[in-house]
Amino acid sequence: LIERTIDIREAERFIRLFHEENPSAGDPHARLREVARDVSRFGTYVHTFEELQFGARVAWRNSNRCIGRLYWRSLKVRDLRQVTGAEGVAIECVNHLREATNGGRIRPTITVFAPDAPGRPAPRVLNEQLIRYAGYRGADGSVTGDPRYADFTDMVRALGWPGGQGGRFDVLPLVIRSGGAPGRGRGGGPGDGEPLLCTLPGDAVLEVPLVHPHYPWFEDLGLRWHAVPAISDLCLEIGGICYPCAPFNGWYMGAEIGARNLADADRYAQLPVVARQLGLDTSTERSLWRDHALVELNVAVLHSFERAGVTMADHHTESTRFLTHLEREEKAGRVCPADWSWIVPPISGGLTPVFHRYYDNPHLTPAFVRHK
Amino acid sequence: LIERTIDIREAERFIRLFHEENPSAGDPHARLREVARDVSRFGTYVHTFEELQFGARVAWRNSNRCIGRLYWRSLKVRDLRQVTGAEGVAIECVNHLREATNGGRIRPTITVFAPDAPGRPAPRVLNEQLIRYAGYRGADGSVTGDPRYADFTDMVRALGWPGGQGGRFDVLPLVIRSGGAPGRGRGGGPGDGEPLLCTLPGDAVLEVPLVHPHYPWFEDLGLRWHAVPAISDLCLEIGGICYPCAPFNGWYMGAEIGARNLADADRYAQLPVVARQLGLDTSTERSLWRDHALVELNVAVLHSFERAGVTMADHHTESTRFLTHLEREEKAGRVCPADWSWIVPPISGGLTPVFHRYYDNPHLTPAFVRHK
Ligand code: HEM
Ligand code: HEM
Repeated sequence: LIERTIDIREAERFIRLFHEENPSAGDPHARLREVARDVSRFGTYVHTFEELQFGARVAWRNSNRCIGRLYWRSLKVRDLRQVTGAEGVAIECVNHLREATNGGRIRPTITVFAPDAPGRPAPRVLNEQLIRYAGYRGADGSVTGDPRYADFTDMVRALGWPGGQGGRFDVLPLVIRSGGAPGRGRGGGPGDGEPLLCTLPGDAVLEVPLVHPHYPWFEDLGLRWHAVPAISDLCLEIGGICYPCAPFNGWYMGAEIGARNLADADRYAQLPVVARQLGLDTSTERSLWRDHALVELNVAVLHSFERAGVTMADHHTESTRFLTHLEREEKAGRVCPADWSWIVPPISGGLTPVFHRYYDNPHLTPAFVRHK
Repeated sequence: LIERTIDIREAERFIRLFHEENPSAGDPHARLREVARDVSRFGTYVHTFEELQFGARVAWRNSNRCIGRLYWRSLKVRDLRQVTGAEGVAIECVNHLREATNGGRIRPTITVFAPDAPGRPAPRVLNEQLIRYAGYRGADGSVTGDPRYADFTDMVRALGWPGGQGGRFDVLPLVIRSGGAPGRGRGGGPGDGEPLLCTLPGDAVLEVPLVHPHYPWFEDLGLRWHAVPAISDLCLEIGGICYPCAPFNGWYMGAEIGARNLADADRYAQLPVVARQLGLDTSTERSLWRDHALVELNVAVLHSFERAGVTMADHHTESTRFLTHLEREEKAGRVCPADWSWIVPPISGGLTPVFHRYYDNPHLTPAFVRHK
């Protein structure tokens, strides 16, 4: 990929879109000529800040799996394209977290590092999200922490991470591969040398201990979750240019934590624990003990974030917002791509208005894409 | 449609499938010749009982929206193809309900009435299901009963139905259009004359009053539901032949009643009522009062059916069964078409194993299709 010239038609399509939606930028022809010239000379071109900002926002707008798109225009775009070294990326990921966390009033933010260029691979964050918890494999095959990251934890330990406290909520270090210097790309494998490990400083990771508004015992389960979901393994693709290192965050919808991360049988699997404390009959599925425990777990998540002053949406409100977004997009004459199976929340799907309709789902660019 | 000759390729494909999966039926060639001859002479052909039975079962197996397909081989097929008159259809729909209800031990059953034939339209049941509740429109625009059937209720009243008690759970009469006599079809419109109204006798309609295992007040809500879901407005298509009148039933999955019929805002909308009785805080979505009330409503549905000795599946068990079905189909070398958005239950989707995977979804025949 990185050896190739970028696709000029993609570039042209994007430049036209930018000028269409930003009339103040004027006529696209001069810019189109410039881009065509750069691509033919250098195999690539450089986005202006305005193009980058617009491209990142539209990539969010085009994220068919995301229910949270109503505020796509307010995405804060941090332009760090000059940063290619692993240390620089690490420092700026930490700064991203501090700025985005904002003491709990979370700001949707993206930090864009150097793009891939012909013969010059970009840096990459290997973590799926900037903040995630380790999963330590025990001798008996059980996992302490998040089983989803057991392989990743093995990997960072092999790279020299000493491990955290050994608890269930140890924040993983960042693992960063630097971008290659021009001409030093090694064909297939981008980056050069060992990746950098970087422990996140405590003040960059806001966490919320989970309590329940009615059940005091809930606190003793010792559950917690981090405040900021920041996806770091998707490639931001704008006008034919790939930014493989462009971590972004929104705020959490409670169900992501309460109905997936802490509930899934192959994640923290807390439903049997909660059900036992609630005194539910777990001997039969017909008691719906799972469903009942799920609701209480989600109540605790929403309550705890609110108590801690950390932005979080519930799935009812976020669903309503999404329908507002759809309406606005329609009014603007645009198709809003949406993937039903991702948009409908994993809890009480039928209760949310997003359940009761179908969606168009074309693949549009700019986009966040999984390049592997 | 009814004036046309059936599609001989569809017929041949089905005959081959039947012989492939039923080796004891021997070589298909003689039957293929016979079918080709009949189609060229009469524009159609007649299924043997074995073909009809197999075709109906495979139509169930191919129902991509149905989570209940594990037992597709055990579908009971009632062959009433000789019946074309509205009275006959009414009588046999009632017999269907009696046999399928079976005192509560519900038997998945289909009754197949006369097929469409060139120039001779088949009879049709106009109801969506054999048993459904009326929705009476009040002067103020509100609806007593099931708002989904307010239009249908208007229609049957215009046809002369005097109405039931005027309550929330008045069973609608069957509305049946007879098949035309040969040559009497009127081009586009099948049937001839006014449709027949037929009140279902009480002993054909088993109903379950809803109570909650822990909350005595629940009974006072006066909720109930019928035991047998019998879809009557889909066309059974086998080998190019359309059976537009082929009502079928399974048993209920609790969530269909508890998370849709009684919960949907445009159906019985019982969540605010249940939440009030539970003393939940309905002033904010963040209390998840909807989700909580939903669980208790579904607990009541499952408990009440069990108490009444009426077959019903919970969504956890039915999800597990569906995965067993998928495995078996795969072992048999077949693709099992499935529509994720219909298969995943409307309550606690993420808790069910069917949520955590994708499905193939080709359109296969025989099939139940919506012809309108
Ligand atoms: C502002 C608050 C936001 C909320 C409440 C929100 C909500 C969600 C939810 C619930 C999902 C599904 C996650 C899952 O099931 O794993 C999702 C996915 C996604 N969101 Fe958002 N989001 C927000 C902001 C953002 C932002 C700022 C971006 C990008 C700039 C974004 C891009 C995406 C993408 C690309 C996915 C799909 C991720 C994947 O494929 O794994 N979202 N979002
Ligand atoms: C035996 C127990 C059965 C269970 C538990 C079951 C369950 C379900 C459920 C939950 C749905 C979705 C309904 C909705 O959301 O509206 C469904 C749809 C469907 N089922 Fe089944 N089913 C059963 C038997 C059958 C039988 C016997 C047939 C046909 C012979 C059948 C054919 C279908 C079809 C065609 C649909 C789609 C209906 C539509 O498009 O509106 N099912 N089933």
